[in-house]
Amino acid sequence: MSQFTRIGLIGRLSSDKAHYTIRRLINFLQTQDIEIFIESDLAENLGLVEFPVFDEQNLGAHCDLVIVIGGDGSLLGAARATAAYNIPLLGVNRGRLGFLTDIMPDEIESKVAKVLEGDYISEERFLLDMTVCRAGRVIASGDALNDVVLHPGRYIRMIEFELYVDDQFVYSQRSDGLIVSTPTGSTAYALSGGGPLMHPKLNAIVLVPLNAHTLTSRPIVISSDSKIMLVIGEENSTFPHVTCDGQTHSVTEPGDEVHIVRKPQPLNLIHPSDHNFYETCRTKLGWASHLTR
Amino acid sequence: MSQFTRIGLIGRLSSDKAHYTIRRLINFLQTQDIEIFIESDLAENLGLVEFPVFDEQNLGAHCDLVIVIGGDGSLLGAARATAAYNIPLLGVNRGRLGFLTDIMPDEIESKVAKVLEGDYISEERFLLDMTVCRAGRVIASGDALNDVVLHPGRYIRMIEFELYVDDQFVYSQRSDGLIVSTPTGSTAYALSGGGPLMHPKLNAIVLVPLNAHTLTSRPIVISSDSKIMLVIGEENSTFPHVTCDGQTHSVTEPGDEVHIVRKPQPLNLIHPSDHNFYETCRTKLGWASHLTR
Amino acid sequence: MSQFTRIGLIGRLSSDKAHYTIRRLINFLQTQDIEIFIESDLAENLGLVEFPVFDEQNLGAHCDLVIVIGGDGSLLGAARATAAYNIPLLGVNRGRLGFLTDIMPDEIESKVAKVLEGDYISEERFLLDMTVCRAGRVIASGDALNDVVLHPGRYIRMIEFELYVDDQFVYSQRSDGLIVSTPTGSTAYALSGGGPLMHPKLNAIVLVPLNAHTLTSRPIVISSDSKIMLVIGEENSTFPHVTCDGQTHSVTEPGDEVHIVRKPQPLNLIHPSDHNFYETCRTKLGWASHLTR
Amino acid sequence: MSQFTRIGLIGRLSSDKAHYTIRRLINFLQTQDIEIFIESDLAENLGLVEFPVFDEQNLGAHCDLVIVIGGDGSLLGAARATAAYNIPLLGVNRGRLGFLTDIMPDEIESKVAKVLEGDYISEERFLLDMTVCRAGRVIASGDALNDVVLHPGRYIRMIEFELYVDDQFVYSQRSDGLIVSTPTGSTAYALSGGGPLMHPKLNAIVLVPLNAHTLTSRPIVISSDSKIMLVIGEENSTFPHVTCDGQTHSVTEPGDEVHIVRKPQPLNLIHPSDHNFYETCRTKLGWASHLTR
Repeated sequence: MSQFTRIGLIGRLSSDKAHYTIRRLINFLQTQDIEIFIESDLAENLGLVEFPVFDEQNLGAHCDLVIVIGGDGSLLGAARATAAYNIPLLGVNRGRLGFLTDIMPDEIESKVAKVLEGDYISEERFLLDMTVCRAGRVIASGDALNDVVLHPGRYIRMIEFELYVDDQFVYSQRSDGLIVSTPTGSTAYALSGGGPLMHPKLNAIVLVPLNAHTLTSRPIVISSDSKIMLVIGEENSTFPHVTCDGQTHSVTEPGDEVHIVRKPQPLNLIHPSDHNFYETCRTKLGWASHLTR
Repeated sequence: MSQFTRIGLIGRLSSDKAHYTIRRLINFLQTQDIEIFIESDLAENLGLVEFPVFDEQNLGAHCDLVIVIGGDGSLLGAARATAAYNIPLLGVNRGRLGFLTDIMPDEIESKVAKVLEGDYISEERFLLDMTVCRAGRVIASGDALNDVVLHPGRYIRMIEFELYVDDQFVYSQRSDGLIVSTPTGSTAYALSGGGPLMHPKLNAIVLVPLNAHTLTSRPIVISSDSKIMLVIGEENSTFPHVTCDGQTHSVTEPGDEVHIVRKPQPLNLIHPSDHNFYETCRTKLGWASHLTR
Repeated sequence: MSQFTRIGLIGRLSSDKAHYTIRRLINFLQTQDIEIFIESDLAENLGLVEFPVFDEQNLGAHCDLVIVIGGDGSLLGAARATAAYNIPLLGVNRGRLGFLTDIMPDEIESKVAKVLEGDYISEERFLLDMTVCRAGRVIASGDALNDVVLHPGRYIRMIEFELYVDDQFVYSQRSDGLIVSTPTGSTAYALSGGGPLMHPKLNAIVLVPLNAHTLTSRPIVISSDSKIMLVIGEENSTFPHVTCDGQTHSVTEPGDEVHIVRKPQPLNLIHPSDHNFYETCRTKLGWASHLTR
Repeated sequence: MSQFTRIGLIGRLSSDKAHYTIRRLINFLQTQDIEIFIESDLAENLGLVEFPVFDEQNLGAHCDLVIVIGGDGSLLGAARATAAYNIPLLGVNRGRLGFLTDIMPDEIESKVAKVLEGDYISEERFLLDMTVCRAGRVIASGDALNDVVLHPGRYIRMIEFELYVDDQFVYSQRSDGLIVSTPTGSTAYALSGGGPLMHPKLNAIVLVPLNAHTLTSRPIVISSDSKIMLVIGEENSTFPHVTCDGQTHSVTEPGDEVHIVRKPQPLNLIHPSDHNFYETCRTKLGWASHLTR
């Protein structure tokens, strides 16, 4: 009997291929002794009426596993939506290998079956908790599995801000912004910005400046226990934005404080047992394989 | 009464200024109720006969504090030499602010007095333990507080090697070599090589490729609990070297394994209580100070 | 008698200091045998009625020299506005050393006097000519002394485009955009984006990717005789913008072509005869001076 | 009739595959109305006695085309050896696509035939002329098609030097050295060091610092008409080396001047008429191809 008995499905139907992949997964799950729950948008898009339906925020309350069909972006959204429920996520990709969604459509039956049998790797990934404070009051907040990004919002305009870590002043900066990234996010936008790769299990956060006006700024890696604070400068010609996982946006004003800490509740990410971070790097980043000897 | 009663002194006499600084420190310590021990090279250079003398490897056995007068390089040497004794080190600089030696010559009396009174910050820094294995036998070993560097030894010649972390294959690489750096070393050679800064307290190691032949290699940050192994490729036109803290060298052959792990015994580094890592960064790296508001 | 007899003044009155600097310059020029013309915004801001007034686009028709009081940004605007008239520009800074405006307020009398006497360096800088074509028709155009930047317009959204140089396909890219920079612009935004410095006299253009999604993209330096074309991809979730010198913006649609070539008519930039590009770099970028020997 | 009637062959016999490729080329050339000349090492290795033999330095005097069979490294050596004779070079690769040797073994008959018929692209590449001067006397010199590299010679030791361009002081630097690269070399070691790509036709030289101790150093692109001078610092703990194309080495002393200028006589490099620099970049550097539309 499966270790998981109540499985929720979240997926974006961006193509016929995605549609087919989701149907294939449902067909397979129906052959197992499993209750299936469907996220509301997905149910509507598929015209499914035979399963219980919940919206993304509530799905986690009814399941002991959520399977996300889509790209890494879909999994980021699902991770934030289900963060409060502490149930594991499993990612099924629609075609292109992802860092987070590592079951390929062709492998659904074999690999999901293995997971249901209990043959999997479970990995804790931490999320970031972001709040914007104005005059002492929280005016916006958000979660991020990949990164919190401070940026100008529109146009190519430099912004200025001060960075504090654990109440210690670090520097002031004029730049296109700052990426505050988890290890999970270190293979995403932080990498584009010139940041280092970080192993998913590392308890660290990297701060990557975006096109800093000075030559002396470098990515800084700090403990994930650190409290990060960005103070928005007074002289910005724009209202800097704060974006979580590239998906939710808040607008700041001069003097606002952006506080970022690790969320106490981690995400439980499930991988097939042959999952290997470095192999994914080699495949997706084009690293060289073994020397011929 | 001072918390430390038996103090060893290590220092390099590279200039009259260094000579003066060391004399000034000895004079001050003599006004305190403290036993002074001198490292043998320093004693000879200064012509000191009134204090017990030990070589650098044994000094730690007789003291409860070692003060190093010199640059960061001198402290690196002292850290490796005294690693077995678990006694704290305090660094007095000869003139230029260092990341490790942060008492300036002018401040000797005031700042060392504070430390003796117990008013200081104690910080644990981990070292790396490096061994070279050939056909299953250890043929060389070394310690490093900053970094272990694999490099071609001579000329501009590319080397090739494979990298494993925790027994997982990461990549093979053709490059000028690899820097394996602690957080302490992240402000030294690893920074020149394009690595990120890492906060001194972070339990992490960064792997920084040296002029890799591929565009896809990036610094990787991993847990300091990781076991790192480099396997020297068969096709090298030179015998790659392994260097600890830029100070000790071992020569490898094709097939050799270089193993690098965190040393169980940390270094105990003592700072004046106003020490601040980020402030040192701002001063030494030229980061911008507070925005004018 | 001065080599220049009809001088136009352009300046931004951002502070009392700027106000004072402009007054000081006018006072000095009045002691010389020179006709003074004032740009209309400046005249209005200063309440000047005793001099002929023209708007920025027409000022060049009446002068044989234009002096710009302000930062590098003011000179960029003046360069584009006067580009058609082929008259030289001289930059007076309001306080902070600029790469383009290199007379400091304190030096106005002495350095401007020298220039009027013919004791100066004249330097040609080329501009970029940018046009956006949709379905074969030009729908927008602009000039740039520093750079033409393709970017997402709003938020942190990746864009995709294809790059052609001299009708040869170079690559397609998913990134935050592309900086197309002159040597003049190589010390500005292109430098923030990771581009190389280029000597002002070099006949070259650098293409600097902005946070490219791939690790293999690098700045590319090509001849300034090259014809550059960017083709906006079909799948962008936003309408990419094209910005000249960070000051003028055009909005593109999928399939639009952005053409960039060197403007035939160069800018004539005048410097005091002690001007030295590398010295400005050392001062502004913090390069090390002579070794002590 | 062929445009070329006297063809010299240079090649390194590093494998059976290379042997086969050379034989295949000779067989083909013998079917054409062409005189064949063989470089002496190659003749000896192949045991060839039926063709006139000359050493690499003199081969150019007898031919109107030299074909180099090997990798880019072989072509670098041939380019330097034949630089005085102004005869064109054509590169045949032994298997892996090169930037300089772009005929693949399989294509020998078809592509070389085309070249002999006059259907080819001829491209001028400039070389660097390097001399080391001590107390006013030239003590060493060399040519380079890719790059002149100043480096520590042995171990990981920082060196210090001053850089002058056109008699203007640029900066002093403490680093692992400096790469002075042509556009041809910009896809080789300079790229590993973080330099930009430069189009082969660009009249420019790039200066790429090797692991500079400061965060403010950046690659600088200057005109290929520039005179570059490096002055070796007094305080080096090693004797810095100067290496041309990674193949010839000179040892310097403190105070030595290394002068680098463009060689007046360019290399004439011949490509099949379908050669395309950007396509080679896409293939070798992994750039993305056309967007799917």
